[in-house]
Amino acid sequence: MKIGATLIEDTFAEAFGMRYTRLIVTAYDEYWLDAAVRELTGYSASVISCDAETGVERSLSSDETPDGRPGVAVLIFGFSTAALTKSVSNRVGQCVMTCPSTAVYDGLENAEERIPLGKSLRFFGDGYQKSKIVGGRRYWRIPVMDGEFLVEESVGVSKGVAGGNIIMQTVDQRSGLDAARRAAEAVRAQPNVIAPFPGGVARSGSKVGSRYKGLPASTAEAYCPTLRGRVESKLHEGVQCAYEIVVDGVDEAAVASAMVAAIKAAAANEVIAISAGNYGGKLGKFHYHLHELLKG
Amino acid sequence: MKIGATLIEDTFAEAFGMRYTRLIVTAYDEYWLDAAVRELTGYSASVISCDAETGVERSLSSDETPDGRPGVAVLIFGFSTAALTKSVSNRVGQCVMTCPSTAVYDGLENAEERIPLGKSLRFFGDGYQKSKIVGGRRYWRIPVMDGEFLVEESVGVSKGVAGGNIIMQTVDQRSGLDAARRAAEAVRAQPNVIAPFPGGVARSGSKVGSRYKGLPASTAEAYCPTLRGRVESKLHEGVQCAYEIVVDGVDEAAVASAMVAAIKAAAANEVIAISAGNYGGKLGKFHYHLHELLKG
Amino acid sequence: MKIGATLIEDTFAEAFGMRYTRLIVTAYDEYWLDAAVRELTGYSASVISCDAETGVERSLSSDETPDGRPGVAVLIFGFSTAALTKSVSNRVGQCVMTCPSTAVYDGLENAEERIPLGKSLRFFGDGYQKSKIVGGRRYWRIPVMDGEFLVEESVGVSKGVAGGNIIMQTVDQRSGLDAARRAAEAVRAQPNVIAPFPGGVARSGSKVGSRYKGLPASTAEAYCPTLRGRVESKLHEGVQCAYEIVVDGVDEAAVASAMVAAIKAAAANEVIAISAGNYGGKLGKFHYHLHELLKG
Amino acid sequence: MKIGATLIEDTFAEAFGMRYTRLIVTAYDEYWLDAAVRELTGYSASVISCDAETGVERSLSSDETPDGRPGVAVLIFGFSTAALTKSVSNRVGQCVMTCPSTAVYDGLENAEERIPLGKSLRFFGDGYQKSKIVGGRRYWRIPVMDGEFLVEESVGVSKGVAGGNIIMQTVDQRSGLDAARRAAEAVRAQPNVIAPFPGGVARSGSKVGSRYKGLPASTAEAYCPTLRGRVESKLHEGVQCAYEIVVDGVDEAAVASAMVAAIKAAAANEVIAISAGNYGGKLGKFHYHLHELLKG
Repeated sequence: MKIGATLIEDTFAEAFGMRYTRLIVTAYDEYWLDAAVRELTGYSASVISCDAETGVERSLSSDETPDGRPGVAVLIFGFSTAALTKSVSNRVGQCVMTCPSTAVYDGLENAEERIPLGKSLRFFGDGYQKSKIVGGRRYWRIPVMDGEFLVEESVGVSKGVAGGNIIMQTVDQRSGLDAARRAAEAVRAQPNVIAPFPGGVARSGSKVGSRYKGLPASTAEAYCPTLRGRVESKLHEGVQCAYEIVVDGVDEAAVASAMVAAIKAAAANEVIAISAGNYGGKLGKFHYHLHELLKG
Repeated sequence: MKIGATLIEDTFAEAFGMRYTRLIVTAYDEYWLDAAVRELTGYSASVISCDAETGVERSLSSDETPDGRPGVAVLIFGFSTAALTKSVSNRVGQCVMTCPSTAVYDGLENAEERIPLGKSLRFFGDGYQKSKIVGGRRYWRIPVMDGEFLVEESVGVSKGVAGGNIIMQTVDQRSGLDAARRAAEAVRAQPNVIAPFPGGVARSGSKVGSRYKGLPASTAEAYCPTLRGRVESKLHEGVQCAYEIVVDGVDEAAVASAMVAAIKAAAANEVIAISAGNYGGKLGKFHYHLHELLKG
Repeated sequence: MKIGATLIEDTFAEAFGMRYTRLIVTAYDEYWLDAAVRELTGYSASVISCDAETGVERSLSSDETPDGRPGVAVLIFGFSTAALTKSVSNRVGQCVMTCPSTAVYDGLENAEERIPLGKSLRFFGDGYQKSKIVGGRRYWRIPVMDGEFLVEESVGVSKGVAGGNIIMQTVDQRSGLDAARRAAEAVRAQPNVIAPFPGGVARSGSKVGSRYKGLPASTAEAYCPTLRGRVESKLHEGVQCAYEIVVDGVDEAAVASAMVAAIKAAAANEVIAISAGNYGGKLGKFHYHLHELLKG
Repeated sequence: MKIGATLIEDTFAEAFGMRYTRLIVTAYDEYWLDAAVRELTGYSASVISCDAETGVERSLSSDETPDGRPGVAVLIFGFSTAALTKSVSNRVGQCVMTCPSTAVYDGLENAEERIPLGKSLRFFGDGYQKSKIVGGRRYWRIPVMDGEFLVEESVGVSKGVAGGNIIMQTVDQRSGLDAARRAAEAVRAQPNVIAPFPGGVARSGSKVGSRYKGLPASTAEAYCPTLRGRVESKLHEGVQCAYEIVVDGVDEAAVASAMVAAIKAAAANEVIAISAGNYGGKLGKFHYHLHELLKG
């Protein structure tokens, strides 16, 4: 199958079930909102070595937030509910509570499972914190220097899908960067997904395991152009560069839509092929066959 | 002492010795440079609960970088050399190595102490990594999907100063946010310093200890406007909001200069007073008396 | 007040509310039970820098365990329910699931709050795990090399008290070690408590905060015999050594009883005084006045 | 090849290069030495999810220690020098410095590489610590309640070998536990090695990767007796139980000797076979072929 000059490989992306939460962060204005979100969504490219995978799902207008201020919906993915419990509290405590004017609300109110957030952070109030119930939901008001940090007692957790991906193989780095950026921007425009890597793109593709004990992942040599000839390569002839878009989403369909958008945005003259990363199908529960996605 | 309508309190900021490193991060263009830096400098407001305090020191033109590409100097502060060793490797491995087109160089080449960087990250290469020596400095070339990630074997570590600060007390939140932003931008324009909190500003000022065992810090109730009347307050009459600028720098003078710049930028009509945070002088080695700073 | 030659100071121990869980660990025989418990209860002296405070509460005969095998009740204290969630799963996964023949049951079945245990660990089964419900409680059976690791889906969490303490001041190290050991053994014989430090005793007493930023605790110089003369000391004349017994318990009364037992066991000729550690009463919720304890 | 009734499989154990350090811990007497060592060597079965792999190498008589007191040599293995730097400081600070009467010395003085120990821990002294040089080695004296905690400024790090292993396949759990214990005790009697799992034995054998993203290891289903029939099994007919001895050592020969000792101790009537765990030879650098070991 081809899109223009670009071969779409007959392969599949292998993705995994993960837990996620959605936080609604609001602030006085866009400046402080961005300050909080930059801090909150940093250092979180991959759960292989970070505590969580995070990203901005979408911006929210004042009409869409509980307190009528500008807001952002952030998705945070973790290996398990227990892992999310720890990461979300730490990150909000360090990155949002510290930031002028912010508040944090649950963005998954109908989820069956919930994890503590304000319930954990309230201890910072050193006994001066107070709770209040509004519309059946409990909030904590933690005294800080600009008044109170308002944070919901708990936030919902649901089952999501992480690790949907496409790999763009291009003739050189310049065309690779262009294609990657087009694809990342296409994902950003989709609802219900994030692309957790820097700028939405991964360049250090990895395989499970390593020849060093205790290192859970190492470079995917099959996709490294400098190793062609020394290893069994998965790069097409003429390819000098590859980039991967990794997509996490709230369900199987959200990831599928984002992958389609990314493929369509990436395909172009100097993009020799688009493939996808998998582990032979034995690990991840979700298999996205590229040809089926594009036909669908 | 007053600057215009703003009282400058006769008090001092208490700062601490910490270790820091400077990384030079470069990328193909500003887009990918920003992607890497956002990821690298997130989740790092305070070593009280983050692994490090990070921030952008300044942008570097192509002339100023080792590889002639656009770059940024990032400062990373940690409690000790050992703590920095871990944080810097993890953060660069997850946030920069993953990002298209980036490279990382030592920005403290004359430091007497050094910590491993490429020396740790090379394991990701799974045996395919190579080292090379250029101009007496050793680099690692780790194969990735767009070629090789070039990273210096080790980076310098020096003694810096962390926790310089001013506290702005204002008539309301709007004037507080304005003053904080002016002060943060003034610090950003100074060399050799960073302001590690979100947007450069801290609103959840903290004291050492808590009534909950195992919690190293809790809210500084003396600066919380909603607690006035219930606790011994340090807020001036009429103050409804306070924000803190925290400054980390490469030496005592750099922090002093940044504090002066912040005070001058912050002082204004609705800023009732500018004070500073200290622990009675018993903890931190560096004491910045506001009046002396402004006379100097 | 005196017990024999030993002055009991008119002071109080300041203790804190913490969350705890009780695990029932069983194994084929005492040899493997001890192997698991040694691993599980190591590296856990204080939540100031460890993830949890752990210890053996008591041994259980075959009659007292759910599966009729030898067992041990272990108490694990953490700063919050969220912190316990992470620590308990990690520790059981690494220290008990790995150990031949073991199983883990909830030891707090009537607690209102519960944290996941088997629910987190089951993922190790890589899809081959199974759950079963017996007597209204859900268990996970995770396939391992000697059959299945049986672990309860969740375990109860309750509010406990941590940081009860006494400080023994003695004429020399020899008498200090003797007194500390007597006191630690007395605590070990009490129900519902643990003494989490090595051998039940702490010698590096700490205060909150430090002159180094980011270090949450540092040496309590007032109790260091080598610093007498340089600092304001709390050591009595003639004292060359001090040791602290720290007690965590399931409620206020359990800690009180253990402190009384420890004081009575410690008092002796070369024990000049027994005092207790506090923070002026402003931090911890529980105050144990030594004189009242001994009168009660 | 057979030893008595036990088949020795024609296979190999695959082990990895890791870094290790050796600490000499001393104390006033055996009681407090054991208290420190129990705390220090807990929660450290495998670097897959613990910060380090630790164990007692051997006991030292008063003649063999720097201060003429009873001692123990502890080996600590980590993924890299940087990882060891963090783990060793934390563990010694929490588990040994806290324990009455202890001191810690470098047990690898000729190593080319060194990591900070006292250099990191001294900060606990809050400025009251002192250093002294004896025989060309620098020590820190940190004031604590029983005098001073003496700890060497830095300790050596060398390249070791981790993950040598044998897998015993037995007719039932009883015979498995007996064989495992015999083998673990044989390893304990060998110099220069540790067996880091509880009691020296692992029962939750693992493979690299998992069908859950972000989980670096999961159960080795091929060795699970309850999964026979559902998966491709590596268990011999009649086997109902398997246990693994994992050995870490200071060099290739030390691990080889310990494996031979373990095999010879384990082989017995109800031990149907002894095999070993590997990853097809692609990951670990060291391959121990069982038949060659036994011929050698």
